[in-house]
Amino acid sequence: MDEFMQAAIEEARKGLNEGGIPIGSVLVIDGTIVGRGHNRRVQKGSAILHAEMDCLENAGRLKPGDYRRAVLYSTLSPCDMCSGAVLLYKIPRVVIGENRTFQGPEEYLRTRGVEVAVLDDEGCRRLMSEFIAANPEVWDEDIGEE
Amino acid sequence: MDEFMQAAIEEARKGLNEGGIPIGSVLVIDGTIVGRGHNRRVQKGSAILHAEMDCLENAGRLKPGDYRRAVLYSTLSPCDMCSGAVLLYKIPRVVIGENRTFQGPEEYLRTRGVEVAVLDDEGCRRLMSEFIAANPEVWDEDIGEE
Repeated sequence: MDEFMQAAIEEARKGLNEGGIPIGSVLVIDGTIVGRGHNRRVQKGSAILHAEMDCLENAGRLKPGDYRRAVLYSTLSPCDMCSGAVLLYKIPRVVIGENRTFQGPEEYLRTRGVEVAVLDDEGCRRLMSEFIAANPEVWDEDIGEE
Repeated sequence: MDEFMQAAIEEARKGLNEGGIPIGSVLVIDGTIVGRGHNRRVQKGSAILHAEMDCLENAGRLKPGDYRRAVLYSTLSPCDMCSGAVLLYKIPRVVIGENRTFQGPEEYLRTRGVEVAVLDDEGCRRLMSEFIAANPEVWDEDIGEE
């Protein structure tokens, strides 16, 4: 297992232990993790702190050029909002743990020049499928589904 | 002037008075403002609190169906990230103060079914053009431009 995806999974588990949605993310620049985050909808009553957004926020204010050397790791396929953040900052590469329990606009990211890799990791899938089965309403709220 | 865009402009001015980037936003549901926000990159050292994101966060956790009756007002054309948030929550209508100093993916929003109206308001334009002239580096950072 890729060490950075492993760090993202640790973030997802941290979120689960806090009673939250188990999705984690890390931002890597030049082989170093510069930000870590996990979904905090439940913990902070937040409508915007998806794992990737929490990660970007925790990384702080970076220079535009920094993002252009970055890789964003997420245990789950990024939604429209988080994919939009990737496009805003021109992050050139996204590594995704799995995209079976939810799939964001991966093809659109590719048409905008982002390299997208999907690991199809069983541990990431299990975290999400178990959470969704137990908490369908919280999950639907997180992805804007009725 | 539309009362809701006026409220968004008040948010933009509040941000400017705090030393921040003068962009404001409000979320309206059934004719009532349910969230207000302004860009807080400078004030909070934030990489994700564009005006629209701050507004959505301040509105709190809403039900998926609530967003589907909402209108998002912003003094400036929403960037990829903020447009992505509109798509995530399936907000059907966006009203934009101006899109001359910066233009986000308005056409992409339209292809995804969002109604986008642009007021081309001179006051919104002046707030931004004066800020950008005085603070080009902060502005470039906010939109990921080198």
